[in-house]
Amino acid sequence: MELLPADQMAFQRMLDTIRRNYERFGFSPIETPVFELTETLLTKSGGETERQVYFVQSTGNLEKKSDALPELAMRFDLTVPLARYVAEHERELAFPFRRYQMQRVYRGERAQRGRFREFYQCDIDVIGKDALSVRYDAEIPAVIYAIFNDLAIGPFTIQLNNRKILKGFFESLALAEGSQQELILREIDKIDKRGADAVKETLLADPFNLDASKAEELMRFVGFRSSSTADALNALEALKGRNETLDEGVNEMTSVINALTAMNIPQDAFALNFSIARGLDYYTGTVYETTLNDYPQIGSICSGGRYENLASHYTKSKLPGVGISIGLTRLFFQLKDAGLISTEESTTQVLVVTMEDSEDALEAALQFATSLRQSGINTEVMLENAKLAKQFKYADKARIGWVAVIGEDERTNNQVTLKNLSTQQQVTINQADAATHMHQH
Amino acid sequence: MELLPADQMAFQRMLDTIRRNYERFGFSPIETPVFELTETLLTKSGGETERQVYFVQSTGNLEKKSDALPELAMRFDLTVPLARYVAEHERELAFPFRRYQMQRVYRGERAQRGRFREFYQCDIDVIGKDALSVRYDAEIPAVIYAIFNDLAIGPFTIQLNNRKILKGFFESLALAEGSQQELILREIDKIDKRGADAVKETLLADPFNLDASKAEELMRFVGFRSSSTADALNALEALKGRNETLDEGVNEMTSVINALTAMNIPQDAFALNFSIARGLDYYTGTVYETTLNDYPQIGSICSGGRYENLASHYTKSKLPGVGISIGLTRLFFQLKDAGLISTEESTTQVLVVTMEDSEDALEAALQFATSLRQSGINTEVMLENAKLAKQFKYADKARIGWVAVIGEDERTNNQVTLKNLSTQQQVTINQADAATHMHQH
Repeated sequence: MELLPADQMAFQRMLDTIRRNYERFGFSPIETPVFELTETLLTKSGGETERQVYFVQSTGNLEKKSDALPELAMRFDLTVPLARYVAEHERELAFPFRRYQMQRVYRGERAQRGRFREFYQCDIDVIGKDALSVRYDAEIPAVIYAIFNDLAIGPFTIQLNNRKILKGFFESLALAEGSQQELILREIDKIDKRGADAVKETLLADPFNLDASKAEELMRFVGFRSSSTADALNALEALKGRNETLDEGVNEMTSVINALTAMNIPQDAFALNFSIARGLDYYTGTVYETTLNDYPQIGSICSGGRYENLASHYTKSKLPGVGISIGLTRLFFQLKDAGLISTEESTTQVLVVTMEDSEDALEAALQFATSLRQSGINTEVMLENAKLAKQFKYADKARIGWVAVIGEDERTNNQVTLKNLSTQQQVTINQADAATHMHQH
Repeated sequence: MELLPADQMAFQRMLDTIRRNYERFGFSPIETPVFELTETLLTKSGGETERQVYFVQSTGNLEKKSDALPELAMRFDLTVPLARYVAEHERELAFPFRRYQMQRVYRGERAQRGRFREFYQCDIDVIGKDALSVRYDAEIPAVIYAIFNDLAIGPFTIQLNNRKILKGFFESLALAEGSQQELILREIDKIDKRGADAVKETLLADPFNLDASKAEELMRFVGFRSSSTADALNALEALKGRNETLDEGVNEMTSVINALTAMNIPQDAFALNFSIARGLDYYTGTVYETTLNDYPQIGSICSGGRYENLASHYTKSKLPGVGISIGLTRLFFQLKDAGLISTEESTTQVLVVTMEDSEDALEAALQFATSLRQSGINTEVMLENAKLAKQFKYADKARIGWVAVIGEDERTNNQVTLKNLSTQQQVTINQADAATHMHQH
């Protein structure tokens, strides 16, 4: 994962957009060290995670050739560091603690397209102390909406579900066991690939052996997508009365959807989808996935949900929370493959070229550049003495939008000739008007 | 190195200021992976660097217990990755290649105050192909000036020298040998600690055995600090005529200083200082150090210079360049110790509190928050149902500047009560005027 400058700028613009929206919703930044103690990092994880961890050693440690695992390892996500951070600084933080964290994480996988050893995660979480109102669950889709609306990568849908609805519904079909639910959900996940009929066949057969009416009801349930706010609220109402768990989920989901309306989130930007589960062991309430309507094959571009307790391994305090994560590196490459990343625009707005090799010409170029920078224009001066054609070619290769020329005539009259490299139009105007002209054209 | 949110925001503001100025001068971003091949990383370095490198291994590699060094190691600076990057992407880059890079680097040192295992470097470099005009050397101090002026951490001085002046001057004293020059410069570095007289004694004695007139001339030379542009230009003029190397250095330094004037850099922001050397093996022309006038003990906060060839280990192309580096992590902690870091201001500008546990009150708060965010105000809504006093206490602890209250009366009249937590003044105004009011007060 290494980008050329034009791609890096596009990537940086995405990072900035995400960060601006996180801050707009009142999230505060934290950064944690890339190293965590191996014992901290491996507390929660099974063997799979351990195989993916990078361990670090300085030369001195290498030489010791100990059989024990190295003391330090690199974070593989931002959730474990958050849990450790909140537990460590609990007394100094204001709760509900709202943090964003946008850093790289590391996984010891074989590098291949779509899989990265090093990639950005952009996370937000709201952490409560002892309790956290379900109202925070409603704020998260508003943040997702603001971000993907700003990123302008096409229409998207925030898919909403609540683990209590899922759990309650399964229980109402007398499918109470967690491992059985998980196996069924795994089959349901294959609907897009295998088709609904094939999946239903599987559920009717060994080892599931669902009876036909249950399978039918289950398929209808997981196949539902709400088409409007009213449709979503009706569907929730219709589910009620089966058991307490389900009703609790329905009430939570209903208040989330009502709050979305209060926050002006358009009803075509979200949908109820009872098939969203996000793994059965961590999330306990609202869950989110976000998909691009025109690129379903990309899968979820922003996911998360509500959990009961962030940091049980590191503190006795109960810390419920809700959060999401955007895996920006993977998303960037997928959007690039889909042609949705524009790399046309350099952060440098104008190149001031120099035509003559004289102190006067240099001085004029430098003074003009200084005044542009003071007007907020990102300005480069070509200080290498090259032919004009070569300087224009450089501007083109570096994707700089404007070229400014101050020849002898312009210098005498305090003027400048500005050429817009995309429209190829040029004007000669007063130097003092140049910044305004570039802002307007 | 892990910060609480208030400090993290202050740190982030510094990063943003540096980045904004790098972009203002037309530098493009790059980021490189934290891992480099061990063979790439250790090409240039001696044993000292090797001891400081962190090697990384996934579990699978650990199990192999090979005697060879691990294949991957973590970057210990941004210069080696830049050299590898430019060599690798040479054909795709536009030259002169101007990049900024602001990333963490890693050194396997024992963690202690002032020394970090992981710290930010913020670098810029301009890389030419085959040649790079000395005019670029003049642009660098303009960037340094813009950054530290914006950071507003007090008066500072950009110390300028040119390695050719230093080399030529030593030669004019018949001190031509590099290793001898280096030893003498090391003694001269101790002037601040030991005093000029003690250092002069050392130079007169074994193993230096300088004769008195040479020692006198040398001490005068390295003790010189220019007090104005005119003073600097006169001092340079006076040095001329000893040998070609020195004259070349004088000419380069003279054009740098003339260009600084053209770029409106105030003459008290820079000074000639012939004692600046920055290590004898890498830099070959202009060198920079930057010091805070009121905190000389902090040492140089931004250093760099001109080098002949960036990437001789990785390409046959000749790639001369000039650049600087800001070690922001160390600087941040030093400024914090000196009381120069303000952590008063959260990125969140206003907390909308909720007084009643009703859907109407919630809806009003959410709608108001949405409209503030659309006006560019970073807004948090307190969704936890808590007593008003507790909500205000939270705002205070989270360092949020404003609290907005929409009670029943305000709701009826589309009003809001805004309280500025630093002035303790409050007003009740139309909700539509709230963003403007907060911008103005």
